[in-house]
Amino acid sequence: MNPIHLILIGDELLSGKRRDLHLQTIAQSLALHGARVASCEIIHDQAGEEEACVRRYLAPGAVIVTTGGLGPTLDDLTREGLSKATGVGLREEPELWEDLRHRYERMGRPISSSNRSQALVPEHGTWFHNDHGTAPGLVFEPPDWPDCTVIALPGPPRELNPMWHEQALPYLIHRYQWPSPPHSILLRFAQMGESSIDEKMRPLLAPYPEIELSSLIRVARVDVTISLPAEYPRAVEILTEIADRTEVLFPEYVYERWDSFREGQLPARELEEVVSQRLRHRGEKLAVAESCTGGLLSSWMTEIAGSSDIFLGGVVSYDNRLKQDLLGVPAETLEHHGAVSEETVRCMAHGILEATGADWGISISGIAGPGGGTSDKPVGLVWIGIGNKPGIETHRYEFPGDRDAVRERAAVTALSRLLQKMA
Amino acid sequence: MNPIHLILIGDELLSGKRRDLHLQTIAQSLALHGARVASCEIIHDQAGEEEACVRRYLAPGAVIVTTGGLGPTLDDLTREGLSKATGVGLREEPELWEDLRHRYERMGRPISSSNRSQALVPEHGTWFHNDHGTAPGLVFEPPDWPDCTVIALPGPPRELNPMWHEQALPYLIHRYQWPSPPHSILLRFAQMGESSIDEKMRPLLAPYPEIELSSLIRVARVDVTISLPAEYPRAVEILTEIADRTEVLFPEYVYERWDSFREGQLPARELEEVVSQRLRHRGEKLAVAESCTGGLLSSWMTEIAGSSDIFLGGVVSYDNRLKQDLLGVPAETLEHHGAVSEETVRCMAHGILEATGADWGISISGIAGPGGGTSDKPVGLVWIGIGNKPGIETHRYEFPGDRDAVRERAAVTALSRLLQKMA
Repeated sequence: MNPIHLILIGDELLSGKRRDLHLQTIAQSLALHGARVASCEIIHDQAGEEEACVRRYLAPGAVIVTTGGLGPTLDDLTREGLSKATGVGLREEPELWEDLRHRYERMGRPISSSNRSQALVPEHGTWFHNDHGTAPGLVFEPPDWPDCTVIALPGPPRELNPMWHEQALPYLIHRYQWPSPPHSILLRFAQMGESSIDEKMRPLLAPYPEIELSSLIRVARVDVTISLPAEYPRAVEILTEIADRTEVLFPEYVYERWDSFREGQLPARELEEVVSQRLRHRGEKLAVAESCTGGLLSSWMTEIAGSSDIFLGGVVSYDNRLKQDLLGVPAETLEHHGAVSEETVRCMAHGILEATGADWGISISGIAGPGGGTSDKPVGLVWIGIGNKPGIETHRYEFPGDRDAVRERAAVTALSRLLQKMA
Repeated sequence: MNPIHLILIGDELLSGKRRDLHLQTIAQSLALHGARVASCEIIHDQAGEEEACVRRYLAPGAVIVTTGGLGPTLDDLTREGLSKATGVGLREEPELWEDLRHRYERMGRPISSSNRSQALVPEHGTWFHNDHGTAPGLVFEPPDWPDCTVIALPGPPRELNPMWHEQALPYLIHRYQWPSPPHSILLRFAQMGESSIDEKMRPLLAPYPEIELSSLIRVARVDVTISLPAEYPRAVEILTEIADRTEVLFPEYVYERWDSFREGQLPARELEEVVSQRLRHRGEKLAVAESCTGGLLSSWMTEIAGSSDIFLGGVVSYDNRLKQDLLGVPAETLEHHGAVSEETVRCMAHGILEATGADWGISISGIAGPGGGTSDKPVGLVWIGIGNKPGIETHRYEFPGDRDAVRERAAVTALSRLLQKMA
């Protein structure tokens, strides 16, 4: 496979002002096609640096991708550096110059002679249109190195990302006939640890050592992806069977499934989006009473555009007085059982259903820490209530981790529990 | 100044599985001493790669820093690569071997012969103790290149970060007599754009062209840092005067100031922490009524440990019914003026003060988008109410940006407004 060399050009990366995002973007999408970045070098935007660096990687069959240094200013030396390193001259492309002039006209800004450099493209080469900026991308094959391709992309992520995914990567796939990406299925789990998932999935995977399994662990959630090369016989069938059987093994814990081979799919959903769509589908509405999570669950639900159809709102009853006055938790309940107790979350869930008329109510009360724990009620203890008109169920948890982790685990677990009730 | 070459070793970076964090960590701290990373190369952990890469940068006065590849497994080839590239042999250091044996003993894990490689250090060199893992760091000066230093650090950030800041960087500062970091003052602004700040600060800075000003723009906030070399005559006095005068120019918009030269300071605070401490200092409590921000402001306030002392909670009145039932907003107000109106946020603020008995109440109602805008009430329109017993004031904003930006701007602006009222 062709070695791919990435050259990131920019003083801001080497001075620590910005963190690079491009290597991961490019490497991840290449990995899907079995291609890999052989090396990545980060250099200053300085005369001679680009040239020396590109020269080092020029070889038959090599792919060199640069990012940055395509702007209209004197600092932007990538075009020139590439030209010097490869011996390929630059020519002004009239179509590109026209395009640039129109673009500046539309923006109501005068075009300066320094912009002229942005209409320069390599001889024996072409360019990628930039939908989000003035610098076109460049692509050419220096004739002295057979099958070698040089690609120059603009630096800003909002310009580079679409150009890479929609133009440069497809160009390379076509040019080198790289294989299709593997087929894969993503399963998203909540309330289930990686080791339990692994233990139950291993026997299913045993007959197919070619299946690659990867896990991404997030707070209280695990994303598991299984994949097979697209060319593997019956790849889709095998992956589908394993995913189906996994869903049967974890009937309540897989909240999202995403098959790479299904056409026209939307991106994989987060737990709160799944909950939101389930509610919409059922024509039902949710309200929440949050104590230790302090509005976190509400803010997740309302991040989703259009959430007002399914989310009524809630009460952040951080103080006990709000639990009493807004949720109707009796003073005696708080006194006898405490704010973090089964009885209190039951009353909170009841109260939020009463106060809002919602179809579903969630209540959460816990000790997020770092202070406030006792031997009876340690930091991490969280009670969750899930209710609808027929009744309220309660669950007790002791979550590990710091304050943020406890809050996030509580919110994730509450949503996962609600999803189970709506199954 | 010595050119510093960074070599990051790890397949995971080049495959896109992990994003590099080290370049920024190292470059930022070097920048404080006027030192800069001349180049950064990311390579595979493969036989020959380290050696070839290090060889390229060996030169008199050069500083070469590698990260990764110091583990006990066969894949970990950094020690060997450095030794081959520089011609400096490795010797087993008995003290380090003892140290490793004790460490494994304490962990209750058997030490294997492959761990022996971790006790190897370069001849004419020394090592950095690793408080968070088994791989010591290495430092040596290859005799063939005068004044050249080679440093090898472990890859995991929790091992690298303390070793870099506490051992490697101080070693380099001392070895090359790098200057002290500059003196600086950080000013954090809310509700004020970069250009307005710049315009007013420029005249103050004009007499001192040596002052460096840098801005970090965040949603609805700007962090401005002014700095002078520590050796500059009267540096502290000059910076202090400019910061004082800036605070006078923006009496209500600077919510935090942090002087680098003051001893024993805590880290600079976020806006919600400043608000929280101001409330604590005054012995007062806050409650909030959120509509378009949907719990975001509450979740910020409750992220802070111990916030129950100053934050009572609130109502997320996403649905109009909750505005009526929990906050007492009259149905006629909602009908005549709409949910996003001065009258409604006034009633919401009044309602949350009444319902909770808080000293301060914040209310927010707006159109976060992307849907729901009209020509009268466009997406981005937000009304904010700030109230206490003496009265309620209201403010109208039209925020730019997408749904997330509008929500975040609204929450920041509300906190900044509250801080102004408590001034």
